[in-house]
Amino acid sequence: MIKEISGGVCAAQGFKASGVHCGVKAGSSPDKNDLALILSEKECAAAGVYTLNRVKAAPIYVTMDHLENGVAWGVVANSGNANACCPMSHENAEAMCGFAAKATGREAEDFVVCSTGVIGQTINIQALQTGMPKAAAALSSDGSDAAAAAIMTTDTVKKEIAVSFELGGKTVRMGAIAKGSGMIHPNMGTMLAFVTTDCAVTTEMLEDALREVSAKTFNRVTVDGDTSTNDTCVVLANGMAGNELIEWKDESYETFKAALDYVCRHLARAIAADGEGASRLVTCKMTGARSEESAERLAKAVVGSALVKAAMFGADANWGRVLCAMGYSKAPFRPEHVDISFESSAGSILVCEQGDGLAFDEELAKKVLTEKEVVIAVNLNEGEDEAECWGCDLTYDYVKINGDYRT
Amino acid sequence: MIKEISGGVCAAQGFKASGVHCGVKAGSSPDKNDLALILSEKECAAAGVYTLNRVKAAPIYVTMDHLENGVAWGVVANSGNANACCPMSHENAEAMCGFAAKATGREAEDFVVCSTGVIGQTINIQALQTGMPKAAAALSSDGSDAAAAAIMTTDTVKKEIAVSFELGGKTVRMGAIAKGSGMIHPNMGTMLAFVTTDCAVTTEMLEDALREVSAKTFNRVTVDGDTSTNDTCVVLANGMAGNELIEWKDESYETFKAALDYVCRHLARAIAADGEGASRLVTCKMTGARSEESAERLAKAVVGSALVKAAMFGADANWGRVLCAMGYSKAPFRPEHVDISFESSAGSILVCEQGDGLAFDEELAKKVLTEKEVVIAVNLNEGEDEAECWGCDLTYDYVKINGDYRT
Repeated sequence: MIKEISGGVCAAQGFKASGVHCGVKAGSSPDKNDLALILSEKECAAAGVYTLNRVKAAPIYVTMDHLENGVAWGVVANSGNANACCPMSHENAEAMCGFAAKATGREAEDFVVCSTGVIGQTINIQALQTGMPKAAAALSSDGSDAAAAAIMTTDTVKKEIAVSFELGGKTVRMGAIAKGSGMIHPNMGTMLAFVTTDCAVTTEMLEDALREVSAKTFNRVTVDGDTSTNDTCVVLANGMAGNELIEWKDESYETFKAALDYVCRHLARAIAADGEGASRLVTCKMTGARSEESAERLAKAVVGSALVKAAMFGADANWGRVLCAMGYSKAPFRPEHVDISFESSAGSILVCEQGDGLAFDEELAKKVLTEKEVVIAVNLNEGEDEAECWGCDLTYDYVKINGDYRT
Repeated sequence: MIKEISGGVCAAQGFKASGVHCGVKAGSSPDKNDLALILSEKECAAAGVYTLNRVKAAPIYVTMDHLENGVAWGVVANSGNANACCPMSHENAEAMCGFAAKATGREAEDFVVCSTGVIGQTINIQALQTGMPKAAAALSSDGSDAAAAAIMTTDTVKKEIAVSFELGGKTVRMGAIAKGSGMIHPNMGTMLAFVTTDCAVTTEMLEDALREVSAKTFNRVTVDGDTSTNDTCVVLANGMAGNELIEWKDESYETFKAALDYVCRHLARAIAADGEGASRLVTCKMTGARSEESAERLAKAVVGSALVKAAMFGADANWGRVLCAMGYSKAPFRPEHVDISFESSAGSILVCEQGDGLAFDEELAKKVLTEKEVVIAVNLNEGEDEAECWGCDLTYDYVKINGDYRT
């Protein structure tokens, strides 16, 4: 039984967080937090998944290095600069960990480090050095909100969640913050997401659970098909819930994985809904598939299609574009078996049956598609497998935001 | 020596064409041609390449069937409806050929048939039946313009070209028309393109030349990553130039292929420049590659990236997005070797060297990127191979056009 609770990344016992403004980006408002810290009072088992982009930002290499021993104590992250593809990027990522360590009395190697923002400009390391003691002083068990705000770039809403569940009579808590709005097409890793839990679990089990869960949550989101250079999701587990250590794939592991899935699914959907310029969350539910893999590939092609996304913006029931996107996805299916419906809280409307268009009520279709959350439901009528992928519509604002983001 | 001449698809000896309005799409202006005919006075060797989308429109299957014997006499094509994914689509595609045959005194099997427009609505076959005698009566050696206009949908300019070249003392002519603006990410086939020539060439040589050339021209264009259900490129060669029949891959074959490449490259660039809503043509030149294949994959990822395209709209020298797109292309390269420049008629500016950003003159960069044709020049510094791909910027108008195209 997974229950939503408050507290975000500080909901689990022993975790504090903070977010402050230090001025990473020249001319940014002093009201915009840009430096986040998360710290556990005990050592954590830690696991991460990262972008598969061949161009990886320096903080990813530093984080991989620091997590090689499977443990960490905290996270340091900034927005306003991706610290990618610029001179001194590796040295500066290491320096950020050093500042965090100095300000908190730990070691540089105890920190995971992440950056997000513009690519290719050297990061303002002085601002981070000056801001770090402020961030350390602000660490508190109420700090999740401030930390979530500090990792936002073009995000319009904070992404935060926490849950509790029971393991062998003990209450375990898990919380997370994430950011992500543009350059979203995660591949094995994801945007930035930090999950904390007081569950007692080995690094190995944590790694397996994170790999399985992120493949079915974050990796099923696309905003614009652009896989970022900085995607990172890290889970820290400090064991303070006092449950029996999870070290095998037993029932407790499954319970833990279900909670991690709940948290990551929530954040994945939140990221899709907050896609740059998006006016609605678009989910594609692909059912009746021969395999989950082909269902995922088909659903992802649909939510990734620029033409489907533009039609969703216009609340236009242009299902031909859905079938067309499936057709170029490279997944096998029979077009002549396909049923397509559009669904939302305003109703459900079948527009294509066995591959051929149906006459349908255009007015109802418009109503269905004008809601904030729209589902494109496709039945392949070929098997029992299914998958769900999330995206958003393509709007004038996406073009506006990205036509002049850098300057 | 390839020379541009006038006459479009009627430039080669023995070809006539026409375009008329017949009202395929309800409520369309009587000034908008929507039915095109092309007819040769002699039998032609014929070859086609088609979309690899698993969902193929009925006209493609009918055309494949009619070209099985390697010969054809003409083309019948309409805009206003794709004749795809709807009841009676196959019967209606066959019927179009039947009408064309009756109106011209030929057989249905002598015709290539193509449709372009909305997917999933049954085509108005009565309009086509009524219009066909009008189209046949209008056939003339001045008809290329009218035919090119008749296959336009969201295209804003007609795509037409003709060339002449010498083969063994004979003058050979080749002409073409094409359409394509949205749902453009050709895969082996392309949009609609019809090439006519009076060259004497076997069907086998024609097929090989078309396959090789379309792979390096049409297949290197992307407007929105959406591979259409109707992409078709067909070449008709009636032999009336009187050159010695090309039946081997000899020097004449290479000369013919060079002319075909010239024609297709022109149309490919025209289609990219006229991408839906586009304000500029964006070319990515990838040089210094280990293989042409990887150069093509990298260049296509760059011109296909929504973020790069939006930056080009904003004339923003955001080269980080170029490197990021290369990174997720799945082609091998070393980020730390990469040089990136932006080039146009206003100048050239190096913005990234050996994978790291350079300080550059923002004002000059803006000037370079504000031109109608912009080149993103990338040197991988790893080998001798190269490839060029074409796309366009992502603008408010793309969203506008596709937010409500169907209704």
